[in-house]
Amino acid sequence: MTSPVGLHRVVQPAGVLPQAAWRLDASAAIGPNEVRIRVQRLNLDAASFRQLSEKHGGDGDAVRAEVLEIIATRGKMQNPVTGSGGMLIGTVEEAGRRSPLGLKAGERVATLVSLTLTPLVITDGLARWDGRSEQVPCDGWAILFARSIAAVLPDDEDPQLSLAVLDVCGAPALTARVVSRYVEERRRSGDPTPVRVAVIGGAGKSGSLSLAAARRAGAARTVGVVPVAAERDALTAAGLASVVALADARDPVGLSTAVTTALGVPADVTVVCVDVPGCEHGAVLATADGGTVIFFSMATSFSAAALGAEGLAADVTMLVGNGYVPGHAELALGLLRAEPGVRQLFAARIAAD
Amino acid sequence: MTSPVGLHRVVQPAGVLPQAAWRLDASAAIGPNEVRIRVQRLNLDAASFRQLSEKHGGDGDAVRAEVLEIIATRGKMQNPVTGSGGMLIGTVEEAGRRSPLGLKAGERVATLVSLTLTPLVITDGLARWDGRSEQVPCDGWAILFARSIAAVLPDDEDPQLSLAVLDVCGAPALTARVVSRYVEERRRSGDPTPVRVAVIGGAGKSGSLSLAAARRAGAARTVGVVPVAAERDALTAAGLASVVALADARDPVGLSTAVTTALGVPADVTVVCVDVPGCEHGAVLATADGGTVIFFSMATSFSAAALGAEGLAADVTMLVGNGYVPGHAELALGLLRAEPGVRQLFAARIAAD
Repeated sequence: MTSPVGLHRVVQPAGVLPQAAWRLDASAAIGPNEVRIRVQRLNLDAASFRQLSEKHGGDGDAVRAEVLEIIATRGKMQNPVTGSGGMLIGTVEEAGRRSPLGLKAGERVATLVSLTLTPLVITDGLARWDGRSEQVPCDGWAILFARSIAAVLPDDEDPQLSLAVLDVCGAPALTARVVSRYVEERRRSGDPTPVRVAVIGGAGKSGSLSLAAARRAGAARTVGVVPVAAERDALTAAGLASVVALADARDPVGLSTAVTTALGVPADVTVVCVDVPGCEHGAVLATADGGTVIFFSMATSFSAAALGAEGLAADVTMLVGNGYVPGHAELALGLLRAEPGVRQLFAARIAAD
Repeated sequence: MTSPVGLHRVVQPAGVLPQAAWRLDASAAIGPNEVRIRVQRLNLDAASFRQLSEKHGGDGDAVRAEVLEIIATRGKMQNPVTGSGGMLIGTVEEAGRRSPLGLKAGERVATLVSLTLTPLVITDGLARWDGRSEQVPCDGWAILFARSIAAVLPDDEDPQLSLAVLDVCGAPALTARVVSRYVEERRRSGDPTPVRVAVIGGAGKSGSLSLAAARRAGAARTVGVVPVAAERDALTAAGLASVVALADARDPVGLSTAVTTALGVPADVTVVCVDVPGCEHGAVLATADGGTVIFFSMATSFSAAALGAEGLAADVTMLVGNGYVPGHAELALGLLRAEPGVRQLFAARIAAD
């Protein structure tokens, strides 16, 4: 039996897991517990796409050439600078008879594990992609392991919309879990203090879903922090936050003042959804003692977070945003259906891409 | 009232936190919530001292001159190349009447916040220091803010031993908090399953304290993982873990097999205390679904942890090891007193330095 976590696909260096590998074996023949997907579209991670685009000064042809080169060299799409990947959409081509994923040939799926560990081959030279968007139409194949995760795409939704939601579905799921815990603890101890949540980058994809998830999990007051007036207006119109505040997340004093002003006090839970470096100290300062910061941004610096909290003598719990929480796909698609504001923001983002 | 995080001491650039500042105002007059320390010794960060010493080819006079120059220019001891500082020992000279730190004039203290954010003036030209060691005897003053942290040094302990314990005191405090929560939750729900804890790097300073803290917090079974036979023997002799296992923490499969074999099942709580990169995936694989990984190593990669857990479809909570937990200094010094095994391992490490 081939390894459930894909160890048999690691070419170099030997003995590491697929995500840490420099190169994977992406050959098309599958083991009995694997699944092969015919790929139709890649969704590059935002931090990865931005790095590539800035490196090449927005030259789409150069970006395309580098993405092709990365995939050909590494057997997977993992940006060597940011370390991040993205996800993909495709159709099940062949499912091994011992695969536990429950997928059938012909089903349209999105992978919910990162491209950084997914064996991938591109066969069309990315000819239909202009290199100017995170959405990459393509032809090729990818391999799923026994412990991979894939969600069957709903028939009644635009696949691009579903994909965009599924791409960040770990954020609302973990936000909901953490907020629920605060609500539950206060209820149990008879503490009437409402739970307050700040989402930094509240108008973005993971941010808007996290705001909606926090409210449904029982947050009494939420603030969505955004960097520019256009996002402020969009998030206000979407009606997902109690308050919308303008602040630069890299300015610790400005960010914490904005959050504290909006909520009346620092946040119990602060969710960081902006993909720029240097937001750690502001997030810590914006959070109450006993509170929790959830870092979803791949631009988060581990040492800046650890040393920053220590230097501020801040008794906050800091979570590495795990993209996997059981039931995360269903929860996020449920928010898309139930919250017109979420649909509105996602549709606008997709139209702008 | 002056800023609790020291914003009023930032001279340049305006608006940043003291740690990020180029220059601080270290004048001796204190605000009502500040404390002034008469400094007796600086403990330079190892990376900082090494950089200075190598730059000057081991010329102690040149190293001393540069340290003096840095402190005079910046108003704090922050190496401009490494960005790091260190800590200090001194005596409380004056405590503002609104300082929440609870310090009294005459008490001997160690600062538990970094020198990188501590206003500092040297008055003796470092005349008693030869520039050849991280330990810098000196005379001068330093300022603590309301949200700084300082621990009173016990009279009955070797200050070097106390300092070594205080340097890592966040690890046992957070470990105790997390383990207690699992113990409490199981008790409340009537679940008789014992709580099991793995400490990666169990023979080191933070590791041995974390093992002792886990046991006192109610862990029924613990494993200390170490990389070499000498550490295995030392940790076994210290008697701090139920089992001691040999494994390379950078080998995910080897590490998780070692932990699972030692505990019978994956760990409920895995504590990472080894300062080598690449331990994230092994720690996640070694942890049970619903479990928690606490990362104390500054070599932790945020994206490797986040994407690794997602890629393994692992429902684990991952914590950034915050060096500050209320009561951490007392808890760690208490473990030093109560656990002969902890004292034994620390004494051996100090003797070897």
